[in-house]
Amino acid sequence: MLFLSDNAAAVHPAVWEAMRAADAPDAPYDNDALSQRLDGAFSALFGRDCAALWVATGTAANCLALASMVPPHGGVICHREAHIETDEGGAPGFYLHGAKLMLVDGEGGKVSADVVEALAASLRGDVHQVQPHALSVTQASEYGRVYQPDELAELASVAKRRGLGFHIDGARFANAVAFLGCDPSEACQGADALSFGCVKNGGMSAEAIIFFDPALADLTRYRRKRAGHLQSKGRYQAAQLLAMVEGDLWLSNARAANAAAQHIARAAGARLLHPVEANEIFLMVDAEERQALRDQGFAFYDWGSDAARLVTAWNNRADHVEALARAIAAL
Amino acid sequence: MLFLSDNAAAVHPAVWEAMRAADAPDAPYDNDALSQRLDGAFSALFGRDCAALWVATGTAANCLALASMVPPHGGVICHREAHIETDEGGAPGFYLHGAKLMLVDGEGGKVSADVVEALAASLRGDVHQVQPHALSVTQASEYGRVYQPDELAELASVAKRRGLGFHIDGARFANAVAFLGCDPSEACQGADALSFGCVKNGGMSAEAIIFFDPALADLTRYRRKRAGHLQSKGRYQAAQLLAMVEGDLWLSNARAANAAAQHIARAAGARLLHPVEANEIFLMVDAEERQALRDQGFAFYDWGSDAARLVTAWNNRADHVEALARAIAAL
Amino acid sequence: MLFLSDNAAAVHPAVWEAMRAADAPDAPYDNDALSQRLDGAFSALFGRDCAALWVATGTAANCLALASMVPPHGGVICHREAHIETDEGGAPGFYLHGAKLMLVDGEGGKVSADVVEALAASLRGDVHQVQPHALSVTQASEYGRVYQPDELAELASVAKRRGLGFHIDGARFANAVAFLGCDPSEACQGADALSFGCVKNGGMSAEAIIFFDPALADLTRYRRKRAGHLQSKGRYQAAQLLAMVEGDLWLSNARAANAAAQHIARAAGARLLHPVEANEIFLMVDAEERQALRDQGFAFYDWGSDAARLVTAWNNRADHVEALARAIAAL
Amino acid sequence: MLFLSDNAAAVHPAVWEAMRAADAPDAPYDNDALSQRLDGAFSALFGRDCAALWVATGTAANCLALASMVPPHGGVICHREAHIETDEGGAPGFYLHGAKLMLVDGEGGKVSADVVEALAASLRGDVHQVQPHALSVTQASEYGRVYQPDELAELASVAKRRGLGFHIDGARFANAVAFLGCDPSEACQGADALSFGCVKNGGMSAEAIIFFDPALADLTRYRRKRAGHLQSKGRYQAAQLLAMVEGDLWLSNARAANAAAQHIARAAGARLLHPVEANEIFLMVDAEERQALRDQGFAFYDWGSDAARLVTAWNNRADHVEALARAIAAL
Repeated sequence: MLFLSDNAAAVHPAVWEAMRAADAPDAPYDNDALSQRLDGAFSALFGRDCAALWVATGTAANCLALASMVPPHGGVICHREAHIETDEGGAPGFYLHGAKLMLVDGEGGKVSADVVEALAASLRGDVHQVQPHALSVTQASEYGRVYQPDELAELASVAKRRGLGFHIDGARFANAVAFLGCDPSEACQGADALSFGCVKNGGMSAEAIIFFDPALADLTRYRRKRAGHLQSKGRYQAAQLLAMVEGDLWLSNARAANAAAQHIARAAGARLLHPVEANEIFLMVDAEERQALRDQGFAFYDWGSDAARLVTAWNNRADHVEALARAIAAL
Repeated sequence: MLFLSDNAAAVHPAVWEAMRAADAPDAPYDNDALSQRLDGAFSALFGRDCAALWVATGTAANCLALASMVPPHGGVICHREAHIETDEGGAPGFYLHGAKLMLVDGEGGKVSADVVEALAASLRGDVHQVQPHALSVTQASEYGRVYQPDELAELASVAKRRGLGFHIDGARFANAVAFLGCDPSEACQGADALSFGCVKNGGMSAEAIIFFDPALADLTRYRRKRAGHLQSKGRYQAAQLLAMVEGDLWLSNARAANAAAQHIARAAGARLLHPVEANEIFLMVDAEERQALRDQGFAFYDWGSDAARLVTAWNNRADHVEALARAIAAL
Repeated sequence: MLFLSDNAAAVHPAVWEAMRAADAPDAPYDNDALSQRLDGAFSALFGRDCAALWVATGTAANCLALASMVPPHGGVICHREAHIETDEGGAPGFYLHGAKLMLVDGEGGKVSADVVEALAASLRGDVHQVQPHALSVTQASEYGRVYQPDELAELASVAKRRGLGFHIDGARFANAVAFLGCDPSEACQGADALSFGCVKNGGMSAEAIIFFDPALADLTRYRRKRAGHLQSKGRYQAAQLLAMVEGDLWLSNARAANAAAQHIARAAGARLLHPVEANEIFLMVDAEERQALRDQGFAFYDWGSDAARLVTAWNNRADHVEALARAIAAL
Repeated sequence: MLFLSDNAAAVHPAVWEAMRAADAPDAPYDNDALSQRLDGAFSALFGRDCAALWVATGTAANCLALASMVPPHGGVICHREAHIETDEGGAPGFYLHGAKLMLVDGEGGKVSADVVEALAASLRGDVHQVQPHALSVTQASEYGRVYQPDELAELASVAKRRGLGFHIDGARFANAVAFLGCDPSEACQGADALSFGCVKNGGMSAEAIIFFDPALADLTRYRRKRAGHLQSKGRYQAAQLLAMVEGDLWLSNARAANAAAQHIARAAGARLLHPVEANEIFLMVDAEERQALRDQGFAFYDWGSDAARLVTAWNNRADHVEALARAIAAL
């Protein structure tokens, strides 16, 4: 009964099916019919023109998106616990040629417009200090918290005022949209680029970088190749994304994961470290309690010494979720 | 009837099967059982201890391998028409942080020990000139030519004498081994690292970097993550490679492609620009003749104004190959 | 009456004289007799074999030193207010190809062995987190505080245990030695590399990178050239450094600056934000008081809203220092 | 009797004088009055608005100029024997973050508009090949050859048509202007940026980057700092340049060097490998003849096995030049 992460869950049958269908011969790289369909599919999803590029990982998506906005001598404002800062092995430093992550704090892994403004205002504009060129936030955040559209609008506004590109790491964007129940475009309001997650949501190896400014996409095509991310059989990459977004699979998978998380959250009650909004549960449980849960067959990660992180996925079995909820309630 | 490239051919059924079997839950990244099996599988293949890392593309494989050998201020000796020089969008410059490709010439895309020695000998050792730190050759070459084991031994010898790491780009290594009929270890004799191709040979999205020096692999694990190439569902990557090399699929696929190429080569006769050793055929055909072939339904790339490049793959249909051979003979 | 910084003070007459003497023809780059004398001069100073390279700025010195210890995928532990973090325009990101500065806190800009150990211990060794490869501290610190030899020994010990290179930014190393009254080698105890400041201490445009491990120096000669820091008339660079360290000019200049700072510090008494050990004085003075000082002709920088930073230099006139001391006492 | 290179000649007395005068206290970095005067001085020289930044070396000047025009994934078209390719230790790879030098040939180290056009036309625009973003030529060339204004206009025209920035490495720009006898602006016609040499022409440690597009300069100020090239006592850098260009010292020094070269050239006659236009002489002399010259006290570099390179400088003594001319004539 795995609640370690959604990042290693099985591939959804509909994704498998789409990939198999891509076996038919077609042009290499992103010249195939499926890859060529991506811009249209995502433009339809977001109700506005956008360009969509597949890459293999969220790290590559985040870093290529940011590299399109930030020169090597610039900086990216992000949360101190953002994935790009804590879990990407320094990839932003690589892709952005040494640009700097400029860290801010915020409850639940969320960045507020105020702290961005405060950081920007604290800097002299001179050459001795790195100047920010982009803002990056995570939707849903690393603590499973979701930005409301008006919060994003405020962030976009300060970004614009300060001349910053605005990037959203949407590794779990689907879970955020499922929680918000809003139009996808509202859940990434004001962003210049979005890393649209698919792997954690039933895909295998494809994430999409969505550029709401096509000029950034053109530049990124060169950088994707240069980073060794232009797969020659790209049609299998495109197939995964199309399987997700040409129907509502991306949303139904996210809803399933969110629903499982809510079920567990209700059982957890006062033990929750953070409100559960997407598919991550941070639970105050001491070492003995964690052992008790593990003894019952539940797998999850410790979160420091007094807590645990549990993540639901599109394919958690209902009986596993129910068993976990009961086990937590019984602690 | 596609002879454009092997790089977009369908995925082999046995690879599909292995990937599907990887759907069972397992640990993320390369902590899963399949990824953990790679070192052993490749050590068995090469009859010596080696470390094997999956990546998504040959470009990433080549560049990560080279980055383990070459500091940012160093250089890589390679053929003027090497893939790393002509077709990777400057990826070596990115992965090696500005290190320089130092170009040499050689018939059929092959590098000889003599030209390597001559280049190295022509340099002052001073700081004004970039100094080479690695040698990279392609087996089989960009013109489908194959290095004999003794040629590689000579190259390895000069590399060692000059303090150079020795890398082999084996995007079509299987085709080279199939041609040589030798032990795989002989076909990469003396190499410190080998980019072991799988995508062009019936895989989907996995290549292997083989390090014959495990210390280089350890370093590269960090760099792979940093390049956004550590996929969380890595088990699907490992599955492709294991499907290839735990049996002889890699070799039988390559033999099929080579045999098709030989069949066509025999029909081509004096029109061949290069001896056909692997699965690429360079054919002297003028514009009219190319049009005639295309009118019969054959797809391939022009090679300059007076020639064409045709590439066979593991899955060319026998009737297509036969038809092509006849069409060429009839020109 | 300038107390803005020592970084723009005049060049000492003895340095001028040495530079003029370098006008005689000699070999370019660092092949001239003066540059060739540097290793010996600094080896004598430190009582052990070392290699010394001139560069034009402290930023270049720091970054080249660190680049010799830290791979692009690694990190450098340093103080949150270290010069490399706050005032070098992101140069470490450039020279270290995206390596990360890993920030710690500490009173007076000083790093303790405990916080280094705590940071190192907090990291998993896995590829998802940047791993530290060096420790960098500033002697004297950005707040004019000085490390005692035993503090350095402890830092060196944890660095060694954790496999970190140990770098000291000694932009004001002379002031630290003058304060400690110890042997220069004790003031950089355990360091693998030292940025030996000369510009702030009466030089014009030369700092020295001292490597206590000659292998690091050899590597750095290539990187210095590659960074455009190998001046062809390097003899004028070497002349500045030799003028400093072949006699005791470096020390007498620092003593003069320190003495001036002590004089002011005594007048400042309880207004001091930090003990004055080298040549920087951080003074609690409100806006009105700062205006009063400026009205009397003293130039200095604000330090936030309630304080000021004053820096003495080798050439402060005694009457200026005395006037400042009185003015502060009279506030 | 040194004819090795102009790059290590003594500093001109007027430059010394200007540097000494800069000893008076002023603001650090480039906030001093002298640095602030640079834009005006060079705008006057070129008869148009330009921005001028000092740096310590020609390598830094060239690379910072190019970095303002070329993204990391781009390329620079230059001559196969350009200084940036052969003598800067890979600095372009460092400063341009892995961008590629794209080499062309041309007589006397000169690039023609035709070969630039031919290279650009030979590229597919796709992501697999590095695309050029700038053209860089050397005025005077590495073989002492000078571009006529109309040749530069043609180069600028093809650069513009192909969307390339146009950079001129003017390490010996003064010698070129002295040869052409034209307005300085004509000798760099159409350039977006010029590395204006001073060190080889009687300066000590300052070169200027001239931007004819001020936006490029603003960006470069950040990059100069980031490269460790923003010296805190920048006024000594500015002083050197102003001493050169606020009067005609730059031109009179170059004329002296050129005249010496012409004197030697006349003696050399048919032994000249290249027409002598600036201050470099390439002389066909075999090993025995070179020895004969050296035995008479002349120092110079071999140029391959059958030739020598001799360089004159602003301060060659007339009797030395005369002696050399006679010695060559007498061979």
